[in-house]
Amino acid sequence: MVQRITVLGAGSWGTAFAKVLADAGRDVTMWARRAEVAREIRERHANSGYLPGIELPANLTATHDPAEALAGAEAVVLAVPSQSLRANLFGWRELLPRGAILVSLAKGVELGTLKRMSEVIAEISGVSGDEIVVVSGPNLAREIAQGQPAGAVLACADHDRAVAIQQASFNSYFRPYTNTDVVGCEVGGAAKNVIALSCGMAVGMGLGANTTATLITRGLAEMARLGTKLGADPLTFAGLAGVGDLVATCSSPLSRNRTFGERLGRGETLEQAQAAAGGQVAEGVMSCTSIRELAYKHGVDMPITDAMHRVCHEAADPRQVGAELLGRRQKHEWS
Amino acid sequence: MVQRITVLGAGSWGTAFAKVLADAGRDVTMWARRAEVAREIRERHANSGYLPGIELPANLTATHDPAEALAGAEAVVLAVPSQSLRANLFGWRELLPRGAILVSLAKGVELGTLKRMSEVIAEISGVSGDEIVVVSGPNLAREIAQGQPAGAVLACADHDRAVAIQQASFNSYFRPYTNTDVVGCEVGGAAKNVIALSCGMAVGMGLGANTTATLITRGLAEMARLGTKLGADPLTFAGLAGVGDLVATCSSPLSRNRTFGERLGRGETLEQAQAAAGGQVAEGVMSCTSIRELAYKHGVDMPITDAMHRVCHEAADPRQVGAELLGRRQKHEWS
Repeated sequence: MVQRITVLGAGSWGTAFAKVLADAGRDVTMWARRAEVAREIRERHANSGYLPGIELPANLTATHDPAEALAGAEAVVLAVPSQSLRANLFGWRELLPRGAILVSLAKGVELGTLKRMSEVIAEISGVSGDEIVVVSGPNLAREIAQGQPAGAVLACADHDRAVAIQQASFNSYFRPYTNTDVVGCEVGGAAKNVIALSCGMAVGMGLGANTTATLITRGLAEMARLGTKLGADPLTFAGLAGVGDLVATCSSPLSRNRTFGERLGRGETLEQAQAAAGGQVAEGVMSCTSIRELAYKHGVDMPITDAMHRVCHEAADPRQVGAELLGRRQKHEWS
Repeated sequence: MVQRITVLGAGSWGTAFAKVLADAGRDVTMWARRAEVAREIRERHANSGYLPGIELPANLTATHDPAEALAGAEAVVLAVPSQSLRANLFGWRELLPRGAILVSLAKGVELGTLKRMSEVIAEISGVSGDEIVVVSGPNLAREIAQGQPAGAVLACADHDRAVAIQQASFNSYFRPYTNTDVVGCEVGGAAKNVIALSCGMAVGMGLGANTTATLITRGLAEMARLGTKLGADPLTFAGLAGVGDLVATCSSPLSRNRTFGERLGRGETLEQAQAAAGGQVAEGVMSCTSIRELAYKHGVDMPITDAMHRVCHEAADPRQVGAELLGRRQKHEWS
């Protein structure tokens, strides 16, 4: 049994997943970029900036020293934003204990390289991509931190490593399923942020559940087109890491991508929405560009992702873009 | 072009679909069971009981005389509740103009016979099931009545008839796609009401988007299992009549099935929830029983539908049933 686990990153999902592991009986050490966040987790069992009101378990500690955090780890969970994963991991690579199972919570496609997160991790760490475990599923951090029951997917080409993390994380509210389709889980996880952005935008424009359900349906189709082109199993998109993750992210007001999209839909600029989100840009704002390029490179049509790129980075009007998305001609559903 | 269309039934979806047709330029006559509803539609261009605040178009009229409503109709839209469709249609069958295209808005599986709605219509009307057009998709009535853009699916084994209704209904906000998979659309349309009931129940128990997204994902899998067993195209469940309709119904507070489930989840009895819904029982409350029987007959596992039957008709405790649904053992996602 994997017992000693390090979680690198103390945002809301990193913290919630660390709590899952601790509640499953593991010894968990988190690394936080800011010393005061590490101290609050270690001394007050709280991360009030990201998960206000949540009490963290006693067997969960934290440090802002990566060497201390990583010493003796049997598994290392990477929980930093997708576009800074490469730089962060580069600084940590000498500290990764040999043989530790690497687990990715990051969801995105790297700008420039167009690599999935497990590909970035493999490149920097020297660990084979087949040995990296990817976590996905309908997992809004706050609900999991509250102990609400949730299913999740642990994907790894090496089934044994997925099972090791399954056994290490299974508890009374967290139900992980294993899967071998890393490509499908990562494409779904990244693309869903972009679709959530589009759903938020529709909500911000005053549209209801018919429109968001249509965006979810068409979004699922376009992420499945890209994923299968890259070698994913189409079935993955029908599961928890596909429709499950997509629906949770698109339907919850807790989703940062959706909230960000709502602001754009109400007419705010990218800068205004960013300022309102405490200076952060939602993952989907960056992923729409890299996923669009990846789709273009592989000849895959992704109209919603393309529309989000135009709104976020080419100053297109959301209303105009929305009208274009809906203004396609009468046809058979799949033609 | 089909020009003269009759809509039988003046509930919220029948009225909204009649408005769609009228806004597309058709001459539409509605039949309402109650004379005062017909009069309000005809004279005041409103159906305040079902769509308060919505102004209906001038080229939409109504009567409570079925013979008057049906005279000269080139298409007849059946918009009555699924469990009363047989009895209603039996009374109308001599009045149906020869050659009129029959269109079904009803979503359910008949108790006792376990027939889909188009099968009931074919049996009573004598029209071949291959000639009946089924309407499905993410179509919450109120949003469509407000003119919000929505996609829909018109399914008919005879493509020409689907195209005729597509041309008759296409307007600035309603985007119908044709499809030949009647079985898939009808199974999806009926089963989604049961899943919406389960999502409402989870919400009523205080659970969030992770849980409802998981129920939607697992619900989609179980409806697809039943549908494909009955001959549906699996792709239908990935489209607007599958995931689209399911997500819209499960995520909107406007959905009667979800609202009904919320009351059950908060601990109300079926009778209390029914009284609160003005004496009506949600479609899913009846469909869970007939769909469960249909699944049993064909050897298909539908755990959520089975759970809803037990809560609605065997007085099972929603909390107990929810715990059982989540308490499945650790496994591979698709095993």
